[in-house]
Amino acid sequence: MSADFSTWARHQRERVEAALADWVSADAPASLGVAMRYAALGGGKRLRALLVLAAAEAVQGNADAALRAACAVELIHAYSLVHDDMPCMDDDVLRRGKPTVHVKFGQAQALLAGDALQALAFECLLPVGPQVPAAMQAALARLLARAAGAQGMAGGQAIDLASVGKPLSEAELRHMHQLKTGALLQASVAMGVACAPQVLPAAAQAALHDFGAAVGLAFQVVDDILDVTGDAQALGKTAGKDAQADKPTYVSLLGLAPAQALAERLRTQAHSALDASGLREVGALHALADQVVQRTH
Amino acid sequence: MSADFSTWARHQRERVEAALADWVSADAPASLGVAMRYAALGGGKRLRALLVLAAAEAVQGNADAALRAACAVELIHAYSLVHDDMPCMDDDVLRRGKPTVHVKFGQAQALLAGDALQALAFECLLPVGPQVPAAMQAALARLLARAAGAQGMAGGQAIDLASVGKPLSEAELRHMHQLKTGALLQASVAMGVACAPQVLPAAAQAALHDFGAAVGLAFQVVDDILDVTGDAQALGKTAGKDAQADKPTYVSLLGLAPAQALAERLRTQAHSALDASGLREVGALHALADQVVQRTH
Repeated sequence: MSADFSTWARHQRERVEAALADWVSADAPASLGVAMRYAALGGGKRLRALLVLAAAEAVQGNADAALRAACAVELIHAYSLVHDDMPCMDDDVLRRGKPTVHVKFGQAQALLAGDALQALAFECLLPVGPQVPAAMQAALARLLARAAGAQGMAGGQAIDLASVGKPLSEAELRHMHQLKTGALLQASVAMGVACAPQVLPAAAQAALHDFGAAVGLAFQVVDDILDVTGDAQALGKTAGKDAQADKPTYVSLLGLAPAQALAERLRTQAHSALDASGLREVGALHALADQVVQRTH
Repeated sequence: MSADFSTWARHQRERVEAALADWVSADAPASLGVAMRYAALGGGKRLRALLVLAAAEAVQGNADAALRAACAVELIHAYSLVHDDMPCMDDDVLRRGKPTVHVKFGQAQALLAGDALQALAFECLLPVGPQVPAAMQAALARLLARAAGAQGMAGGQAIDLASVGKPLSEAELRHMHQLKTGALLQASVAMGVACAPQVLPAAAQAALHDFGAAVGLAFQVVDDILDVTGDAQALGKTAGKDAQADKPTYVSLLGLAPAQALAERLRTQAHSALDASGLREVGALHALADQVVQRTH
């Protein structure tokens, strides 16, 4: 990771944290706001937000729209973690080294906090006033709704639920992850692109779509590798959880070394897509593809 | 209820059912679509949808936008019922005379189906193509996000959770219900109004806002009355549930006859607001206020 990218990423994370701290209000009734802030603030790599902001940078996007989109994808991600950790789903007690939301606030409050974070993600994209054109607002909210819903993240989680203890082919596993984690990662890139002040050339659109697909898949492959090779302290969650739960993973399907080779191939694909885009300001996207594959937690 | 209104309401309900049957696809992976359809189709009075369509009629609104908005509020309502019925919330096993979603499909699938229905509500409001202008799409999605979130429905449910076994003043109870059920009912009227091809006069806007507030509150007062006077078969849910759970209600706070008088006063307020609006096509809104107060289930 270059020093330039580190500086950029630190600066962008600070902007996102500050905006989220502002938009996720503690004022919501009956401690709901407190639970929402606990879930949404001060944690995580903010990978999705950085993908939005890096893609927006590549297309000289509307800065206000990009910051809102960055926060919106993080709010959707945060809500999905809250619900995913609940006893009826993965039953996790630890997230980013802290008690999960339902452990801290109770299941009912966790359910509501997740629900309210999803609504807030959309609210965030739909400000009153002239700073983000209405057509851009609608395009951003449309991309997010699709990525979050039944044909995206929620659908992927349904496949995941149904797959426990069942052998999946690589194609089936890939489809599950394309929806479960890939859809929102890919939407992050697409939403950054949707902040462009005018329509991009079709070749650049297609290349950034391919970039998002490769990074989305690489993320999951590396996640499965870290579930085997990582430790709970660095991960901030229980390692070996998926293997224990008899969930199919890229490592269980392909083996460790082939899974690592796949992650490297996807990184190369992501970089090639950036070269093919014809866009110049793609340094941050390039570095983010590296970070996804090289991360240790 | 006039014969005209009955005919209008039946026709509109059929349009909404058909549109929902089309938009809530069974294709979602791993039975998620089946659970979503079970939750969203073929049941309920569709009061929220009718409020949208009646308000849109009063302002000669965009018909495609109004039908989408009608479905979107019903999808949000359906998701909230799925989550509200779960064991960690109200733990209800019966809804509209059928097993609740988590009883039928399991808690994890119910959680995901609710989550996906919320995303679908927004997707529904944000079609690609020229039939609904982008500014109208953004305005509709903004109203829905606010009504569903922490300062609306989800916030009201958080107050409700926190209020079990606690004495509330009438003002506190009113605030809870303004958020929990009032916000979405009021948003239904506001979304119908937002389908207007041009901005309404301020007096009409304010009058329809007052109408929505009165109907939203009347709905909850009548709900509390029916919880005492209704029977499970007509209600399609367990009667006496709130009283049993030691939840504060308008009946427990005011007594039955004063709660009934309050409902009547709110009906009069709603009708007066329509008179003050200066709009002519308010027959359906007028009849809906009657229906909210006179309903027996």
